[in-house]
Amino acid sequence: MKDLLLAGRKAERSVVEVKGVSIGGREIILMGGPCAVESREQMSQSAKTVKDAGGKILRGGVFKPRTSPYSFQGLGLEGLNYLVQAAKEQDLLCVTEVIDRQSLDLVVDKVDIIQIGARNMQNFELLKTVGSINKPVILKRGLSATVEEWLLAAEYILASGNQRVILCERGIRTYEPSTRNTLDLSAVGVTKSLSHLPVIVDPSHAAGRRDLISSLSKAAIAAGADGLLIETHPDPDRASSDGPQSLTPEQFMALAQELEPVADSVQRSFTFGRREDTLEALRARIDRIDESLLEKLAERIQVVKRMGDQKRLDQVKDSNRQKEILQRLVALAAELEVPGELVKRIYPLIFEYGIQCQIKSKLFQESDIELPLGGR
Amino acid sequence: MKDLLLAGRKAERSVVEVKGVSIGGREIILMGGPCAVESREQMSQSAKTVKDAGGKILRGGVFKPRTSPYSFQGLGLEGLNYLVQAAKEQDLLCVTEVIDRQSLDLVVDKVDIIQIGARNMQNFELLKTVGSINKPVILKRGLSATVEEWLLAAEYILASGNQRVILCERGIRTYEPSTRNTLDLSAVGVTKSLSHLPVIVDPSHAAGRRDLISSLSKAAIAAGADGLLIETHPDPDRASSDGPQSLTPEQFMALAQELEPVADSVQRSFTFGRREDTLEALRARIDRIDESLLEKLAERIQVVKRMGDQKRLDQVKDSNRQKEILQRLVALAAELEVPGELVKRIYPLIFEYGIQCQIKSKLFQESDIELPLGGR
Amino acid sequence: MKDLLLAGRKAERSVVEVKGVSIGGREIILMGGPCAVESREQMSQSAKTVKDAGGKILRGGVFKPRTSPYSFQGLGLEGLNYLVQAAKEQDLLCVTEVIDRQSLDLVVDKVDIIQIGARNMQNFELLKTVGSINKPVILKRGLSATVEEWLLAAEYILASGNQRVILCERGIRTYEPSTRNTLDLSAVGVTKSLSHLPVIVDPSHAAGRRDLISSLSKAAIAAGADGLLIETHPDPDRASSDGPQSLTPEQFMALAQELEPVADSVQRSFTFGRREDTLEALRARIDRIDESLLEKLAERIQVVKRMGDQKRLDQVKDSNRQKEILQRLVALAAELEVPGELVKRIYPLIFEYGIQCQIKSKLFQESDIELPLGGR
Amino acid sequence: MKDLLLAGRKAERSVVEVKGVSIGGREIILMGGPCAVESREQMSQSAKTVKDAGGKILRGGVFKPRTSPYSFQGLGLEGLNYLVQAAKEQDLLCVTEVIDRQSLDLVVDKVDIIQIGARNMQNFELLKTVGSINKPVILKRGLSATVEEWLLAAEYILASGNQRVILCERGIRTYEPSTRNTLDLSAVGVTKSLSHLPVIVDPSHAAGRRDLISSLSKAAIAAGADGLLIETHPDPDRASSDGPQSLTPEQFMALAQELEPVADSVQRSFTFGRREDTLEALRARIDRIDESLLEKLAERIQVVKRMGDQKRLDQVKDSNRQKEILQRLVALAAELEVPGELVKRIYPLIFEYGIQCQIKSKLFQESDIELPLGGR
Repeated sequence: MKDLLLAGRKAERSVVEVKGVSIGGREIILMGGPCAVESREQMSQSAKTVKDAGGKILRGGVFKPRTSPYSFQGLGLEGLNYLVQAAKEQDLLCVTEVIDRQSLDLVVDKVDIIQIGARNMQNFELLKTVGSINKPVILKRGLSATVEEWLLAAEYILASGNQRVILCERGIRTYEPSTRNTLDLSAVGVTKSLSHLPVIVDPSHAAGRRDLISSLSKAAIAAGADGLLIETHPDPDRASSDGPQSLTPEQFMALAQELEPVADSVQRSFTFGRREDTLEALRARIDRIDESLLEKLAERIQVVKRMGDQKRLDQVKDSNRQKEILQRLVALAAELEVPGELVKRIYPLIFEYGIQCQIKSKLFQESDIELPLGGR
Repeated sequence: MKDLLLAGRKAERSVVEVKGVSIGGREIILMGGPCAVESREQMSQSAKTVKDAGGKILRGGVFKPRTSPYSFQGLGLEGLNYLVQAAKEQDLLCVTEVIDRQSLDLVVDKVDIIQIGARNMQNFELLKTVGSINKPVILKRGLSATVEEWLLAAEYILASGNQRVILCERGIRTYEPSTRNTLDLSAVGVTKSLSHLPVIVDPSHAAGRRDLISSLSKAAIAAGADGLLIETHPDPDRASSDGPQSLTPEQFMALAQELEPVADSVQRSFTFGRREDTLEALRARIDRIDESLLEKLAERIQVVKRMGDQKRLDQVKDSNRQKEILQRLVALAAELEVPGELVKRIYPLIFEYGIQCQIKSKLFQESDIELPLGGR
Repeated sequence: MKDLLLAGRKAERSVVEVKGVSIGGREIILMGGPCAVESREQMSQSAKTVKDAGGKILRGGVFKPRTSPYSFQGLGLEGLNYLVQAAKEQDLLCVTEVIDRQSLDLVVDKVDIIQIGARNMQNFELLKTVGSINKPVILKRGLSATVEEWLLAAEYILASGNQRVILCERGIRTYEPSTRNTLDLSAVGVTKSLSHLPVIVDPSHAAGRRDLISSLSKAAIAAGADGLLIETHPDPDRASSDGPQSLTPEQFMALAQELEPVADSVQRSFTFGRREDTLEALRARIDRIDESLLEKLAERIQVVKRMGDQKRLDQVKDSNRQKEILQRLVALAAELEVPGELVKRIYPLIFEYGIQCQIKSKLFQESDIELPLGGR
Repeated sequence: MKDLLLAGRKAERSVVEVKGVSIGGREIILMGGPCAVESREQMSQSAKTVKDAGGKILRGGVFKPRTSPYSFQGLGLEGLNYLVQAAKEQDLLCVTEVIDRQSLDLVVDKVDIIQIGARNMQNFELLKTVGSINKPVILKRGLSATVEEWLLAAEYILASGNQRVILCERGIRTYEPSTRNTLDLSAVGVTKSLSHLPVIVDPSHAAGRRDLISSLSKAAIAAGADGLLIETHPDPDRASSDGPQSLTPEQFMALAQELEPVADSVQRSFTFGRREDTLEALRARIDRIDESLLEKLAERIQVVKRMGDQKRLDQVKDSNRQKEILQRLVALAAELEVPGELVKRIYPLIFEYGIQCQIKSKLFQESDIELPLGGR
C-alpha cells in the first residue's frame, strides 16, 4: 500500500510504551471504564473494577462527540479531574478522547493516552495536532473507513512526529441490524499484515449490547489483538450514554477472568486480578493453576492409556523414551526457571503411575475383570 | 423474533449427531477440503490432510454455483464419487453442496451432510426440499442476509420436518475491499442468543486470502463457534477455484494444531492429529502435554515467589494451607480419574521447591546476593 | 467486463418486443399491479388502474418467495387465473414471478413475461431453465448483487438461448434505515454502458414507502430507465403484502400523469391515459398540448424581448433571419408530418407579434411610458 | 425524528438567499468548478464555463482534506484568491470547503458560501463554528451517514445561530464497485419529508466517473433536488485531483443544456446559457423553442387525427369546442404575457389544418386512396 512510509510494515512490530505499560508486546492490555465521566463516585468505582480485573488503563469521556446537539456533551474539565483522580487512586493510566485543539490543550498534560474517536478519524487537522504532541494516541477506525484509510490516518499522526500510535477496531457500519456495528476482526490480521502498529479492539461500541462483549473480547484476543477497550459502569442502567453496551462490574470481572486462558492459548499473556498481590488473590491464582495442572495430568494419563493399546505390554516400560523425556524437560525447565531437581523427582512418579494405569486399562479390556490399582 | 417457532431458543442447545460425530457439543468439529472436487488424487490427498489434522468431515463441491456461466461448474457425479471414496478411505464423513432437486437426488444417499450455499439461502423451494430429507443440512448465511433472515431460512427446513440444521457464518458483503467478505463473528453470539441450532464458521470464503485463516479460525472458536469449515487443497496454486484462500496441507495441519489450546481456553475441546493413535502421534501428544505441565509449574513457582513478598518468611511454610490444597486436589483427582496417590506424592515436592524458590527470591532481593539453589 | 459474451455492449441497444409492446425503445413502459394477487376483484380493479394510467403491463405475484415460512405464500394457480383474466379484460400484458421449474411450468403458457425475483438472481438452475423458454424475462437485481454479478446472471439466461432479457434495478442493501433498500440509479447508466439489454426500475421495493415513489420514478426516467415496475393496490391498507409501499389507484394515476413531461424532457415518450381514445381523453390531451404550446410561445416572446435589448431598433426586423427560420421549420415540419402550409401561415404572425413586443419593451425601457399594444 | 427542533419540517420550505441567488426556490441552481484550485488560468476558464452554462456558483477547493498526508493538500490562500477573482470576473458567487477554524477565518470574508465536506459532517466543533458565522453553509452528507445523522449535523449549525444551511447528497459507501460511491437519490425525498432545508446533489463525487454525471444530474433534478454541484475542469486529464469524474467544458455545457427541459418537466426552472444575452445565444434559444413548438404542433395534429376516428365526420367541425378552447387560451395568454391577438389569429389556422388532417386520415382509411392535401 503506497504512502504508508511510516505506518507500513517493518521488520519488527512496534510496542508502544507508556509509563511501564507496553501495548503491542506479549501482554494483552485491558482498558476499561465508562463511556462518559459522570461523577467522582462513578469514576472511583470504575477504576476499582478495572484494577480488580487486571486492567491497566482507565477510560472515560469528558468531551463527547454526540450525534444530536441536545445530547449530553460531557462534563469537560470537571470530568477530567474525576478521571485523573480515579486513575491515580488505583495506580492506573488513563485515556480520554479529544475533539479539537482546545480539548487537547486541556487534557494533554493530565492524561496518559489521547483517543481520537471514529467520527474524527479523517479530521486531518486534529490528526496533525495530536501528531505534534508527546503522548500516545489511540486512533479509532472510522465508522465506514477502509483499513487503507485508517492506516493513512495513522500516517498523518506519524508524519507529524508522534510515533506512538495504537490502532483501535470498533466495528464498521453494515446492513445488519442485530448489532450496533459489525465488528471486523479480519481487520486485526489485515492491519498487522500491512503495518507495524499495535491494534486493540473495542467490542462495546461494535456490539452495542452487553451480552456479546465476552464472546467478542475472547475472539479479538484469539484473532491477535494487542488489547481491549471495554465499557463498564457501576450501574449501567443509569449511565448517561451507552448503558446497554456497558458491563456491570461483576460482568467485567468475569470477562477478565475468562481472558486469561485465551491469551495463553495464543502465546500471549493476561493476568486476571489486581497487580498488588494480596495473599488472597495469589492463593486463588495458585488454586487455578493447580486445577490446570491436574487437568493436564489427567489428559496425560488418558493418552498413556491409549498408548498402551498400541504397544505390547512388555514394551510399555520404555526406559529410553523416559530418559529422553526427562532430559528434554530438564532443559526446558531451565528456560522456564523451574528447578531441574523438581522435574527429576516428579517425572519418575508420573511415569510409574502412567504404567500402572496402562496395565490396569489393558487387563481390564482383555479380561473384563477390574484389577485393584492398589498393589503398588 | 417472531416466527422462529422451531429455530428459536430452547432450554437446551441442539447437538446434531451424524454417524458418531456431534456438532454443537463440547467438541469443536473441523471440516476441510477443497472448494471444488477436481480429481481422485486431489480428494485422496485432501482427505488425508483433513484426517491427519484431526478433522472429522471432508468437504468438496461437485455442483458449483458460479457467478459466470463460463466458469468451471463442477465435476458432477464423477466428482461425487471421488469425494465419497476419499472420505471412506480415511474414515471421514463428507459434505457437498446441492443447488436444486436434481443435484440433491444425486447426492442424498451418498454423502453424510448436505450444504445449502450462500446464494441459495433464500431459495425457499430448495429449503423445503432439503427439509423433507433425513440428512443434516449446513445452511450458509446469505451474502447479505440479516441474522433474522438466516434463522427464518433455517425455519423453512425445520418446518418441513428436518430438525438437523447447522448454521454456517461465511462473511457478509460490506464496503471493505481488503477481504472478500467481512466475517461477522458477532453473528455467532447473536444466533446463539436467538436459536438452539449449532453454528459453524467458514473463514475461507469470508477472508478470501489464506493469510487470515488462522487468525479468524481461532477467533471463531473463541467467539463460541461449534466448528470450522476450511478450504484446503494439495496444491492451491493449481486449484480450479478459490485457490488464493485455500490452505496448503502444511498450513492446514499447523492451523489445526493451534486450535487445540484455543478450544481448551473456552471450555471446548479439539484434538489435533489422527484419531487412530499411532505411537508417534501419541508420543507427540504427550510431549505437548509435558510442555504445558512445565509451563503451569513455572507459573505456579512465579506466583509462589510473589507470595513470598507478601508474607513474613516465618509464615511461608503454611502447613494448614498445604493440607487444604492437597485435600481439594485429591478430590478433584478422583473426578478426573487421576490416581490420588500420585497427587499425594507429587505435591509435597512442589510445595518444598516452592518454598525454596521463595526463600531464594526473598534473600536475593534483600541481600542482592544470589543463593545457590542446590543444597536441598 | 469479461464473460459478457452475449450480454455485453453491442453497436445497437436491444429492444425486447412482446405482443406489440417494445421495452427498450423510445417509449417508457409502465408496469403496475399489486405485490400479491389476492382476489378476482382486486386484480380487476388493479388492471383498470394500470390501463387508465397508460400502463401496458399488469403485474401480480402468485408464487411469493417470503422470508418467513409462515407468511402468505401466494394464491398459486387460482391467483394466476385472476391475473391473466384481469389483464385480458383491459387488453394489458401480464408478468408474474416464478420460483422454480414447477411454478414456471404452471405459468409459462399463460403470462406474457416471466419475472425472476431478487432472491433468485443467482439461482443458476432457475436462470438456465428460463433461458430455455420463449418468453421475455425480467431479471431483478439481487439484494446485494454487484452490477457485474447481475449482468452475468443475465448471461446465464442468454447463454441458454433466451435473448429477451430485461434488467430490473430494485434497490440494494445498505446501512441506511430510512428506506427499505437504497435505489441505485447509477446502475441504470452503468448497465447501459456495459450491456445492450433494456433496464427498468422498481422504485416500490427500493423505497418501501409510498411517499417516495413519485420522486424516484421520475428520477429513474430522467436517469435513462426504459420502464417502471410500480406496486399499486385498490386498498393498500388491506394488502396482504407490501401495503406500505403500494400506491392507491389515485396516486398511481397522478404519478403516471407526471411521468409524461419527464419522459419528453429526455427524448423519450410516455402517454398518460387509456389507449382506446375516448373523446374526453383526447380532448384533455389536446388541452394539455395547447397549454404547452402557449408556454413555449410565451418563452419565445420573452427571449425575443431580450434580443431587442441587444440590437438597434432598426435592425429588429431582420428579414433574412426570418426567412432562414421559416425554411428550417418547414423542413422540420415535413419530418414531423406537420403541414408546411400551416407553418408558413403561423410563423409570420409570430414574427410580427414578436417585433411588436420588442418595440414595446424597448420604448417602455427608454421612455418609461407604456405603449398601447393594440394598434396593429 | 426527535431533536430536529430547528431542522425539522415546517409549514414552508426554506429558501436560502445569497446575493440574489435563491437556493430552494423554483429555480435549479447549478454550481460547478474544479475539485481543487490549481492556477489562476484554470479558475478563470472554469468560471467562464460555469457562467456560459447558466451556472450561478463557482466551486474550488483550496484546503483539501486528503486521505493520504502525501497527496496535494490544496493551494491555501493563493488558491483562494484565484477562486474569488475568477468568480468576480464572471459575476458568479463562490463556495469553498473549510476544514477547521483557521481555514474558516481565512475564507469567511471572501467567499459567498462555506462548504463542510463529507469527512467533517460529524466534526461537531466545526459545525458549531460555522453555526456562528453569517454565511450560508453547504453541508455534505457523511460517507456513511444516515439521513438522521445528517439532519442532526445540520441541527448543530442551526442551533448555533446560522439558519442558512443547504444539504448536499454526495453518495454513500456501499459494496458496489462500479461507482466510487452509490448516489442515494431517495435521500432527496426523505430529507424533504423530514426537513425544510434545501437539498442539492453532487453527482461527481458519487459516481467518480464522468460518463454517469449527465444521467445522474437529470435524475437528481427529477427527484426534486434544488441544485447541482458538479466538477468541471478545463483539462480533466491534468487535474490534480478527481480528474476522472470531472467534466470537460464541452461536457459541462452539454449537460447544462439538457437540464433545462428536465427542470421544466417537474415544474422547476433552469436557463441554459449566459445571462448577459449575446445575440447568438438568444437566437440559439429561439431555435430550440421553435423546435419544441413544432413538436407540440405535431403531437396535437396526431391527437386530432385519432379524434377523427372517434367522431362522425359531420361532427368534426365542432365550433362550440373551438370557441371554448380559444376563450380558455386567451385567458391563459394574459397570464403568460402573450398577446391575446396572436392566439386569436393562430388558433383558427391550427383548427383548420387539424380538420384537413382528420379528413385526409379518415378518407385514406376508408378508401385506401391518398387524398391530395393541397386543395385548401
